[in-house]
Parts: sequence; C-alpha cells; structure tokens
Amino acid sequence: MKTFEARVKAVMAARDPHTFVTAREGSVTVDLAGIPGDRHYGLTRPADSRQRFYPRGTDIANRRQISIVSVEELAQIAERLGLPEVLPEWLGANLLLEGYPSLTLLPQGARLLFPAGTGLIGEGENLPCPGPGEAIAEATGHAAAATRFTAAAKKRRGIVCSVERIGTITEGDTVQIMIE
Amino acid sequence: MKTFEARVKAVMAARDPHTFVTAREGSVTVDLAGIPGDRHYGLTRPADSRQRFYPRGTDIANRRQISIVSVEELAQIAERLGLPEVLPEWLGANLLLEGYPSLTLLPQGARLLFPAGTGLIGEGENLPCPGPGEAIAEATGHAAAATRFTAAAKKRRGIVCSVERIGTITEGDTVQIMIE
Repeated sequence: MKTFEARVKAVMAARDPHTFVTAREGSVTVDLAGIPGDRHYGLTRPADSRQRFYPRGTDIANRRQISIVSVEELAQIAERLGLPEVLPEWLGANLLLEGYPSLTLLPQGARLLFPAGTGLIGEGENLPCPGPGEAIAEATGHAAAATRFTAAAKKRRGIVCSVERIGTITEGDTVQIMIE
Repeated sequence: MKTFEARVKAVMAARDPHTFVTAREGSVTVDLAGIPGDRHYGLTRPADSRQRFYPRGTDIANRRQISIVSVEELAQIAERLGLPEVLPEWLGANLLLEGYPSLTLLPQGARLLFPAGTGLIGEGENLPCPGPGEAIAEATGHAAAATRFTAAAKKRRGIVCSVERIGTITEGDTVQIMIE
C-alpha cells in the first residue's frame, strides 16, 4: 500500500436543481449516499450512457457520488482551452485537491482518507461530457470551450468516488491517498 | 471493454449464524446490500484487519457482500492440499463459476451480468484467512488443511463483489464478465 498526501483546496456542492455547476462550501458532511442535498446524492442512480450494459434509466448502485478534480489538471485544461483558468465549479466538482497532479489516473479502489476519519473509494476516471464545456463557455464568453472541452479534459477531468466511511470533509484538510 | 462468459455452477448462502460455511440454494435474489439473510448481508460492515486504515470495528460501506470462487481454482487448491476436492461451501462462497479460470485476478471494477439483469461489481481478491482451512479440516478429517489453506489458496481464493443492480441469480445462469 503506497500513501500520498494532497490538500483539499475547495469543497463544493450542487444544491441548485437547475444546474450541475457547484458552489463553494467550507465543509460538507457525507453519508453512504454522498453529500446530502447534492445533485449526485443517492444510494442509486439511473444507468446512463456510461453503463451501456444496463438499459438506460435502470436503477443501479451510485458509484458517482462525489467528483474530485486537481488544481494541476485544471491548469492543463485551461492551457489547452486558451483560458487563464478553469474553475472546479464549472466542472461540477465537489472537491478540489492540490498536490496529487495526475488525479485522473488514480486507480479504481484507491482510498482517500480525511482527518475527520471520513473515507472515500476512488471509482476511476470521470469521463468528460459536454456539460462543463457549455458552463465554461457561458462563464468566460469563450464560445469554443463548449466544443473543445471534451478533448481538452480527456484524462484530466478527475475522478468520481463513493463514500466508504461517513464524516466531514473540510477546506484545508490534508487527504491521504492510498493505493494498493 | 472485453467480455467473457462463465457458467454459474452453484448458488449458496450462509444463513446459519453459527458458521460462515454456506449451503446450496437453487437461486438467490440480491438487493443493494447483498443476499438478504446471508452472513455478509448489509450496506455497511465493521472494518477489520483488511482495512487497517480505519479503526477496527468502524462502520464502513460493505464491498464484500458476495463471494465467488471458480471450479478451476478450487481444483488447484485441492491439489495443493492433497485432497480429492474442495467444496465452495467450505470457503463460504456464494457463487461457484466455471469457465473463467483465473477468477481471483479479475480486476476491481469488472462487471458480472446475469440473465435476469442482475449486476455485480468485482471488488478484487478475497484474501485467504484461516477459517476455510479449519472448515476443510473438519469436513475432510485432513488436519493439515487447517494450517496449509492460507498459502494454498493465495491468488486462488476468488473474489468479493458488491451488488450494482438488484435481481436474481440462478444455478445454470450464463454470466457475462466485462473488463474495461
């Protein structure tokens, strides 16, 4: 088991039902279904194009409860889009980490442990979809971002996680990342 | 995504609270916490020596709901123990598969899909512990199995799974094994 450390730079949730764009919160408390009140909260969710082996809309276990991006990968996406920055909110991220640059490559089953005892299980790469590109275009006025985001974010868009142990996650936390 | 096929040779559950040894059933219906009434059923379970990064006994998400072994690997364990056979019940297995020999090496995140639409997520190798060796020794009178099981079963003891989509699993089912 290898252990790495990173820092929680921002904690966010999507509580507005009209958008997947997240907003900053100082801290969130997660349960086994994710962040209560967040758009992706739930023990189950409907299968979509990412799980083509189930009929679309089938109720399946929700392994996409919490999404995480890294400062380093967002900078790379911004550079590829010709933008000064890309905010984690525009990608609908719940956590922004700094200090573990290739977050997207974190293998499925990796653990993320927070000082309060909270534990997440890495569920692998968050495959880019067009939504964030549209949010970036709208926020920056840079219309090309809408079509270029998916390619720019490939292998850089961060990961999705599910909750293994309930607890709190707070801005400024040191997170231990454990890989078998 | 690569797909393989295997056959469900036996379906078992541990409903006797006094033992982890399982007993055959023709069919089980799983929900998001596993096989209702089975020893390993539950949305959560207490952390043990396999999750040393949580205090022992901490309530964590149960990713060890269902255990699966393969006919081929059981035969290898039996050979190493000098026994004519090792029954899946003695290992507390819930499913016995045939046709996917190196089941234990199935990567975390692999999917197992059954004809009824039921879906499991592979959660990786089931690390051998002394319990099955003792059960084998008791069942066969071969006392050495008690101490030799752990080594004989390493990388052959099968996998644990959690439920992704609820449904039924029946003896004789063809299971599709999907690996990214």
